[in-house]
Amino acid sequence: MRTLLASTAILAATVGIASAEVAVTGTARMGLIDTFGDTGVQFSSRVRINFTASGQTDTGLSFGASMRADQFGGNSNDGSNGSSGNTGDTNGDSTVYISGGFGKLTMGDVDGAANAASGQTDGVGYTGLSDLNEITYLANGGTDFNGPGIGLDDPQDTSVLYEYTAGSLSFYLSSTQLDRAIGAEAKSIAAKYSTGAYAVSLGYENLDAQDDYEWEQFVLGGSATFGGVTLKAIYADGKNNQGDEWKQHSLSATYAVDALSLTAFVSDDEDLLSNDLATASNVRAYGLGASYDLGGGAKVSGGYVKNRTDDTDAVDLGLSFSF
Amino acid sequence: MRTLLASTAILAATVGIASAEVAVTGTARMGLIDTFGDTGVQFSSRVRINFTASGQTDTGLSFGASMRADQFGGNSNDGSNGSSGNTGDTNGDSTVYISGGFGKLTMGDVDGAANAASGQTDGVGYTGLSDLNEITYLANGGTDFNGPGIGLDDPQDTSVLYEYTAGSLSFYLSSTQLDRAIGAEAKSIAAKYSTGAYAVSLGYENLDAQDDYEWEQFVLGGSATFGGVTLKAIYADGKNNQGDEWKQHSLSATYAVDALSLTAFVSDDEDLLSNDLATASNVRAYGLGASYDLGGGAKVSGGYVKNRTDDTDAVDLGLSFSF
Amino acid sequence: MRTLLASTAILAATVGIASAEVAVTGTARMGLIDTFGDTGVQFSSRVRINFTASGQTDTGLSFGASMRADQFGGNSNDGSNGSSGNTGDTNGDSTVYISGGFGKLTMGDVDGAANAASGQTDGVGYTGLSDLNEITYLANGGTDFNGPGIGLDDPQDTSVLYEYTAGSLSFYLSSTQLDRAIGAEAKSIAAKYSTGAYAVSLGYENLDAQDDYEWEQFVLGGSATFGGVTLKAIYADGKNNQGDEWKQHSLSATYAVDALSLTAFVSDDEDLLSNDLATASNVRAYGLGASYDLGGGAKVSGGYVKNRTDDTDAVDLGLSFSF
Repeated sequence: MRTLLASTAILAATVGIASAEVAVTGTARMGLIDTFGDTGVQFSSRVRINFTASGQTDTGLSFGASMRADQFGGNSNDGSNGSSGNTGDTNGDSTVYISGGFGKLTMGDVDGAANAASGQTDGVGYTGLSDLNEITYLANGGTDFNGPGIGLDDPQDTSVLYEYTAGSLSFYLSSTQLDRAIGAEAKSIAAKYSTGAYAVSLGYENLDAQDDYEWEQFVLGGSATFGGVTLKAIYADGKNNQGDEWKQHSLSATYAVDALSLTAFVSDDEDLLSNDLATASNVRAYGLGASYDLGGGAKVSGGYVKNRTDDTDAVDLGLSFSF
Repeated sequence: MRTLLASTAILAATVGIASAEVAVTGTARMGLIDTFGDTGVQFSSRVRINFTASGQTDTGLSFGASMRADQFGGNSNDGSNGSSGNTGDTNGDSTVYISGGFGKLTMGDVDGAANAASGQTDGVGYTGLSDLNEITYLANGGTDFNGPGIGLDDPQDTSVLYEYTAGSLSFYLSSTQLDRAIGAEAKSIAAKYSTGAYAVSLGYENLDAQDDYEWEQFVLGGSATFGGVTLKAIYADGKNNQGDEWKQHSLSATYAVDALSLTAFVSDDEDLLSNDLATASNVRAYGLGASYDLGGGAKVSGGYVKNRTDDTDAVDLGLSFSF
Repeated sequence: MRTLLASTAILAATVGIASAEVAVTGTARMGLIDTFGDTGVQFSSRVRINFTASGQTDTGLSFGASMRADQFGGNSNDGSNGSSGNTGDTNGDSTVYISGGFGKLTMGDVDGAANAASGQTDGVGYTGLSDLNEITYLANGGTDFNGPGIGLDDPQDTSVLYEYTAGSLSFYLSSTQLDRAIGAEAKSIAAKYSTGAYAVSLGYENLDAQDDYEWEQFVLGGSATFGGVTLKAIYADGKNNQGDEWKQHSLSATYAVDALSLTAFVSDDEDLLSNDLATASNVRAYGLGASYDLGGGAKVSGGYVKNRTDDTDAVDLGLSFSF
């Protein structure tokens, strides 16, 4: 990517025009993981190639697109080192956008507004260790909710996210695919106030399964950096029209000094196990991790995560690269 | 792509040699579509990344290859923002070629000769709206003919297309895979005469299903540009040895003034519904569309298409980008 | 690729830093093949795009990753010019590595140690003609052994390969995925001594199916170049704890003069047909081939291969390109 950008700079300097282009970047990781369960220590590696396209109209509007080619996998047991991505959900994360004075409009596999505003807390490990630090958002498209209750039509992509920023204030609005025939629709609205060191965000999500089932959730997020410490907190409070109520929270602290970074988190979205929004990661958990920057796009990371709901744990140690 | 080509120019100027290379380009689109049927308005976005490889032998022959990585999709309902391409027909469109004084020989997912010579008329909409302007060619490989009659073994890729141009005259010859075991074979021959503003083409296609079923079709194409108007017309006349006969036609007019472009088409390949060559798009139809060039590779387009056979219609409006 | 590297050189010269980057290269081929069996002559083309990422840490360690996007295929009969790769085994060949004074550690779809040390003899034809020159290694992950005897759990990727070179001596150590739950594990150790013109290698492979079935094999390899002739020989001797024993061998000679290259091979791994390690290519065979370098990354190649076990043969002729 750096190469392409540099080349573009040369081109722009030489020819005096801006041109649409596609930058090719990537990430990779390799290491050892002892994941939740009984398989013991295993090798885990992954490669992802990213395509980032960008251009500009004559009137100065920016536009672009992104797509990913994956070799996902880690500890895959299908004999192929992880099927190679570009199928199904794995590479569903392509997006297309246009932006200008009116804000930014993105279509594709985008986050819902509440997620875009509040994000997630910091996780640990070079693989993320099942991302148990993350809370569950209702309004991200393509989510395969798979709860113990009644079947729930999932909100689907192509989703749309609109963002507008004025000074310290950002505004977000989103919708999953408008699916009048079979599916659920999820909509979200959120706002965020951020200064250099502090940010606070509030979002609302509504999931309408169109067969008289309806879910909704408020999400409050905050982050603050002082000294080398960054704190992130997310709290969600939801209910549906079937009498279920739930609360989620996640809190992380990351301490960075020179090339070293230490992270701890606690999270709880166990309440979701009682309704149709539950996913495999709806548990009480905590985690500890460390990361050391080797420079040039490489770092070494390790983490430990405890799943308190199932009383299992996982640990990993490995290298992460970005190109 | 422009970046890479510019870099190549810099390289060539600096080092003084030509080198084989792979250029990465792409297309994307985003917008709204109300397609044929009852689903109502939906979001539709798509990203495609193209790889175009090229080189030159010591004796000056040009060679190259092309491949596409897709996130196809539009209004996909499978929860993944469109499965991500690179599977099956979606990314079957890779090609390999060599060219020189003898002409150009291309293998892979190439069009048959008649299609290469006469092409298709202009369609409308940022998504193409099911491409109802297109006629059906017999000799393109990989086509899944799916008619109401007896089953037909489909002609298959790897196909081959040979092209030779001398002055205003171009000659085309093609064959689908030579499939002596199970499949059909389709062959085609065509010629085209083109000046700056006018072109006329004639092609013949033969599809031999090797179980005594045989189809054939003549295709006549023409195009003319005068003032800002481009007219395109294609007429096809075919029959098989089962007693079926059919005619197809499509006519389009595109008027371009400054950044604006207006297109209208009428088409009819409804006759094919009575034999094994029918596909989902064999209907009588007309369409109207407009496109406005925003510069830098972006345009906004919209279209309306009427399927007169099924008495349904579709409309879309969106942005298209090329990188 | 050359473009990107050149651009990087320009960047490095200008900015004075080294940066992680992703180079995009590719290969393609087109031609005719009359393969083993009764289908007769068919068209066969293929395109592969390769992503090669590389970077360097602040302390001078090199790291990188590779991935491939395929249009595989040749004579595919599925109507799509070969499904387009990036699925299953076809694109399983991604790797991630880090290297330095300690050697090189690679994870992903890597060869086992014995294979890394001894490789394979030279094959013939622009398609490889089923690679009947190759012997069967036990310790490459992702291999779908499919023998006539009892079922064998296959050793699986993610595999790991460690390489260390000191002067003329190289040392290799590998393991397939550590799969304590269901699968087999294969481990290998090998060493290689190479000077400019000669190389000799010795490797040991052990495949533990963990249900009391165990296979092992010694592999001896050698190569020598004198005048324009390169000889390669590989000999393998193995047995399992079920009473099976087998021997494999392959020998190739390639004569290169100017742009022309002639290759012949004889091979025999027919013994494997009597146990669970057999694959479709376990036969006695010989082959003859020629290749002519056209410059710029293009060559024309043809080959003939005789499968003496099944008394069938195959021949191909075509062009190969690298970009």
